[in-house]
Amino acid sequence: MTGAEFEAIAKDGVPFAALLEWRVERFAPGDVRVRLPHHALLLRPGGTICGPALMALADITLWGLVMSRIGRVDLAVTTEMTIHFLARPAPADVLAQGRVLRQGRRLVVGEVVMRSEAEPGQPICHVVGTYALPPAIDRAAPAD
Amino acid sequence: MTGAEFEAIAKDGVPFAALLEWRVERFAPGDVRVRLPHHALLLRPGGTICGPALMALADITLWGLVMSRIGRVDLAVTTEMTIHFLARPAPADVLAQGRVLRQGRRLVVGEVVMRSEAEPGQPICHVVGTYALPPAIDRAAPAD
Amino acid sequence: MTGAEFEAIAKDGVPFAALLEWRVERFAPGDVRVRLPHHALLLRPGGTICGPALMALADITLWGLVMSRIGRVDLAVTTEMTIHFLARPAPADVLAQGRVLRQGRRLVVGEVVMRSEAEPGQPICHVVGTYALPPAIDRAAPAD
Amino acid sequence: MTGAEFEAIAKDGVPFAALLEWRVERFAPGDVRVRLPHHALLLRPGGTICGPALMALADITLWGLVMSRIGRVDLAVTTEMTIHFLARPAPADVLAQGRVLRQGRRLVVGEVVMRSEAEPGQPICHVVGTYALPPAIDRAAPAD
Repeated sequence: MTGAEFEAIAKDGVPFAALLEWRVERFAPGDVRVRLPHHALLLRPGGTICGPALMALADITLWGLVMSRIGRVDLAVTTEMTIHFLARPAPADVLAQGRVLRQGRRLVVGEVVMRSEAEPGQPICHVVGTYALPPAIDRAAPAD
Repeated sequence: MTGAEFEAIAKDGVPFAALLEWRVERFAPGDVRVRLPHHALLLRPGGTICGPALMALADITLWGLVMSRIGRVDLAVTTEMTIHFLARPAPADVLAQGRVLRQGRRLVVGEVVMRSEAEPGQPICHVVGTYALPPAIDRAAPAD
Repeated sequence: MTGAEFEAIAKDGVPFAALLEWRVERFAPGDVRVRLPHHALLLRPGGTICGPALMALADITLWGLVMSRIGRVDLAVTTEMTIHFLARPAPADVLAQGRVLRQGRRLVVGEVVMRSEAEPGQPICHVVGTYALPPAIDRAAPAD
Repeated sequence: MTGAEFEAIAKDGVPFAALLEWRVERFAPGDVRVRLPHHALLLRPGGTICGPALMALADITLWGLVMSRIGRVDLAVTTEMTIHFLARPAPADVLAQGRVLRQGRRLVVGEVVMRSEAEPGQPICHVVGTYALPPAIDRAAPAD
């Protein structure tokens, strides 16, 4: 799967997140980067970017990570996600970099670190999440 | 603050989440219920509700909880949130019930449990999150 | 399985946690209560109970929850756990109450709420964690 | 503060964790490494290391991170911690590497990644946690 294919599948599949007009910037196995372009829709009081937009960005990036490793799995589902907000992002583009912490037969654990393009030195968000793979994948993949 | 006041502030403040057309159904101190009406915008593959919409609902409910206890605090910010997806929600309205686990001078920890109106017996999401209060609140509130 | 059987298995299996001399007080399917008796070994600066003892109590309680529903599964493993420390516990016994948020074929999500016997009104810890069941269980149990 | 000083304070302060005979191997500001020596006390069914020992190691490493940046703060407390178990560790020493994700006036967020000395290629645990600093530190430190 290419980044463009993932982007098409994910924007078609999750129209609420597609409103954010996110774009895949890198899509290699276990190494996915997604850009959240700045937009007035994302603002919240204090001139910063709202949490729900960053959470949606995290979820999309984690889904991309799973597909970058395993191919198209529409029915993979997030089982849990923990997000830490580390700094108030400036009103600028956000870059989410994902990597796989563990890939098993049934569960994939990924990490996403987000940085503002305006202040790339300090991460603004740290996310860890788990995706459960459907049983067909379960049988085909190597043992945990 | 009333639920209608919170709804107006939060929809004005977080326009991305306002697209979900959520509605406050209960707004007592430390006891907040928010409805996510079903909408085609929320679907994802499998005919279920997408994670980012549920995360946005969680964030709004947690913010409502803080305001239900403390009044208007635009600058309170989520510091972290953990969400567990427990069951695939049916394509129906979702009800998010929030309660305060701890209110300190500087941090408020809240819990949100979501149920689908179609299958209210099994929760579909469990969320725990922390809000940090700005320093002015810090000084005014009782000691931890 | 009875609470006494779980206690014997878990104390034999996890000797580090057994040093805490925890005791099962209730062991019904999906409803497990474990007592952490007060002990000088548990103290930390400030006259309160150390985090690692409470984390161990959470892990044991979650394991008990899984066994209370499914029977003996030595190879079930925690995949993740989130703990929120809500109040500094007094130097007194701690009671951990666990319940199942979701039981699937492959994953069990449980919640543990801890209270100090000295101040039962305010929970001191809130925990959510996931156990992955080994594949044999996977096949025998009902569909997710 | 030196690593030896931190080790003395933490072993004296948290005797339950001191039973693990952990040792500081690196103690620079925001860069702390702690070794958990292998020991029969740490085993659990399956010949692997029990979760409570790894959680205790995480908590000690996060506390070390805080002290490595701020100096002695006995009353700093963990407010929350999320741990993901990524692989079953072999019966061998575990190395926990901590780094600071964010240091604010009131909250420090740290990350700990653990590897088994027997299989260093795959992390066995990933941890994110938050420490709340007491108010005296709050006033002295730079603004968030």
